[in-house]
Amino acid sequence: MQQFDAIWINANIATMTDNGHAYGTIENGVLAIKDGVIAYVGQRSGLPAFDALATPLYDAAGQWLLPGFIDCHTHLVYAGNRANEFEMRLNGASYQDIAATGGGIKATVAATRAASHEELFVLAKDRLNTLLAQGVTTVEIKSGYGLDLATEQKMLEVAAELDRHHPVTIQKTFLGAHALPVDYADDADGYIDAVCQMLGQLQQLGLVDAVDVFCEGIGFSIAQTRKVFAAASALGLPVKAHAEQLSNLGGSALVAEFGGLSADHIEFLDEAGVAAMAKAGTVAVLLPGAFYFLRETQLPPIGLLRQYQVPMAVATDLNPGTSPLCSLPLMLNMACTLFRLTPEEALLGVTRHAAQALGLNDRGSLAAGLRADFALYAISQPAELCYQFGVSQLKQLIINGKEVSSRR
Amino acid sequence: MQQFDAIWINANIATMTDNGHAYGTIENGVLAIKDGVIAYVGQRSGLPAFDALATPLYDAAGQWLLPGFIDCHTHLVYAGNRANEFEMRLNGASYQDIAATGGGIKATVAATRAASHEELFVLAKDRLNTLLAQGVTTVEIKSGYGLDLATEQKMLEVAAELDRHHPVTIQKTFLGAHALPVDYADDADGYIDAVCQMLGQLQQLGLVDAVDVFCEGIGFSIAQTRKVFAAASALGLPVKAHAEQLSNLGGSALVAEFGGLSADHIEFLDEAGVAAMAKAGTVAVLLPGAFYFLRETQLPPIGLLRQYQVPMAVATDLNPGTSPLCSLPLMLNMACTLFRLTPEEALLGVTRHAAQALGLNDRGSLAAGLRADFALYAISQPAELCYQFGVSQLKQLIINGKEVSSRR
Ligand SMILES: [Zn+2]
Ligand SMILES: [Zn+2]
Repeated sequence: MQQFDAIWINANIATMTDNGHAYGTIENGVLAIKDGVIAYVGQRSGLPAFDALATPLYDAAGQWLLPGFIDCHTHLVYAGNRANEFEMRLNGASYQDIAATGGGIKATVAATRAASHEELFVLAKDRLNTLLAQGVTTVEIKSGYGLDLATEQKMLEVAAELDRHHPVTIQKTFLGAHALPVDYADDADGYIDAVCQMLGQLQQLGLVDAVDVFCEGIGFSIAQTRKVFAAASALGLPVKAHAEQLSNLGGSALVAEFGGLSADHIEFLDEAGVAAMAKAGTVAVLLPGAFYFLRETQLPPIGLLRQYQVPMAVATDLNPGTSPLCSLPLMLNMACTLFRLTPEEALLGVTRHAAQALGLNDRGSLAAGLRADFALYAISQPAELCYQFGVSQLKQLIINGKEVSSRR
Repeated sequence: MQQFDAIWINANIATMTDNGHAYGTIENGVLAIKDGVIAYVGQRSGLPAFDALATPLYDAAGQWLLPGFIDCHTHLVYAGNRANEFEMRLNGASYQDIAATGGGIKATVAATRAASHEELFVLAKDRLNTLLAQGVTTVEIKSGYGLDLATEQKMLEVAAELDRHHPVTIQKTFLGAHALPVDYADDADGYIDAVCQMLGQLQQLGLVDAVDVFCEGIGFSIAQTRKVFAAASALGLPVKAHAEQLSNLGGSALVAEFGGLSADHIEFLDEAGVAAMAKAGTVAVLLPGAFYFLRETQLPPIGLLRQYQVPMAVATDLNPGTSPLCSLPLMLNMACTLFRLTPEEALLGVTRHAAQALGLNDRGSLAAGLRADFALYAISQPAELCYQFGVSQLKQLIINGKEVSSRR
């Protein structure tokens, strides 16, 4: 007789698979887990026989199961905050005034360089706990506030330690090409060479799952981005980019050219870029928090992304400069309200498509053989998770088959 | 020797009084309470002698004390939700389609009429607990989803029960003139007569602290609003209005004419209205959540409000139709990000000015003689409470001198 570690019955299950129903829904279904993996999901009638006395049984009583949420774009390891410049700006200070006080990303780099591993870990853990309480089970974390080997390494080591000591799974992205450090002020190409060298060293330490570049007029050029991508590819590492946020440089098409995971922000992406991404299977990562916080007005090309069937993910972009908003549920609401995604698109964006953006094929939907990462919500339809914000409807969270929180 | 019930030392205190410093700050100060009231706030040197062995002493260690937050505009007693129409609209349905399915405020009225007192209480308590966890200590709750005597009474009785059984203090506002019920479809004047009658009955039951009207093209006219205000004034009740949200009807000036508490929304308020409010001492209640959720583009006249020194409050407008956002901290961020309030203006908007909007002069700032409603935050400057969102910095919350939550 097949054994399960636990079974949920009477559950409406938003599998987020492509099963022909909105949200991949299975009504009044059953989900069974074994050894951290989903062993069965479907109708009660199809469930293999099991030892009813020895198997914990949870009655979902018509509540909804969804995959654990995945935040596929964050910068959540950092020290300091930029409340100071936020306040200065609202009191009328110019960007020049703020730069003169050492503000902007320079401030975060200085604070992150000065912070100890332990200090960074504590700060990041608070943010990760906040995401966990929202039903988030996998988080991507980028480096990029070190801009020197020691600090980039420290940031990625903190991410690795979080992965080991926190129930949330962490994906580590090297973003050495985030900004130009002061010591390379007139030598961006020289810094890019240094980034490629750092990459090799960090990869040898097992600290890099993917490589990101800030490809923008105020960031790095297409030629510089290509150089980093080539170095990553030579090491067998997947690439992605902050691209087309403020202008259309063609960074997204470059990611596609390298068969990369995702192009992120993409407010200024054009049709050629969309077509290239579609062909390469590159995910469009939408970051409505940064759009909101920066009061952008150029919307990402949602219509074209739909037309070319480019998968859309939604993430927090959690960072101290342009999205100090530690809430993936808020991003669900903003993706619908500001970007006009449907609730189903938004929820795919933090589940199946977010997993795809991280190159993870063992999670993001609910199907036999996938990781048992899922949450129980006291809702009567999935759209509620996008429509309302503030009162938590999360009742139970399971990661890798283990219950990590319960408010039933 | 003077006795205190408890003392906080080494606290940075944002008193939100007009003491000549930003946020009314007292650096490295002391706050002492006695019998639910602030007995002393100021420098350590000025604190009267006390029995050190018998008095609980909290070392704030440089963290910040602020007044308890006040959410001065909510509709948080309601049943049902409108995720359905949210999703329909994002899938391309027109407002006509949605109205045809019984959507809009009609849906909330039907659900609220059908819900029992107990059901409404449980739903509202969840929302109130969420606000409490954000440091909110006083909440205004409006009726207005009954549109008949029995249901308006039920809503206000739920609000009264929350006031008795929940640590948060509740102010009850009668908003019978929220929308035209179906049974008065062609007789708005007749309904206004009914509202005036209901008002008298509800006031006799002790259920009304203030009276509100939705004064708008799609709501009630100036003449109808005046009629309700006159009835309220005859009963000695203060008035307020949902005014100038979608057009400039002059509702705010009408509130001012009646010496009313607040004009709320006010995106389309003109200079004459601002001047009238300034003269009457009427507070401008800004509701950035509804502005965001409805994707409005007309900003409230912040510059004029500053020029005429009209106090600005900030509230959630928590409601299922236009602001299903149960978070006052999110409104602090949105007030700054979308309306360009300074962090100090935003924080005054949820403390001193929010108290003024409710006609409460016993709270909203930290001074001897006021209610001991305050919170301890692990921040290094008050602006952090506006700048970042998601990770809670609330460490301790005191209402009426009693600790209601502690995460130190
Ligand atoms: Zn980013
Ligand atoms: Zn309202």
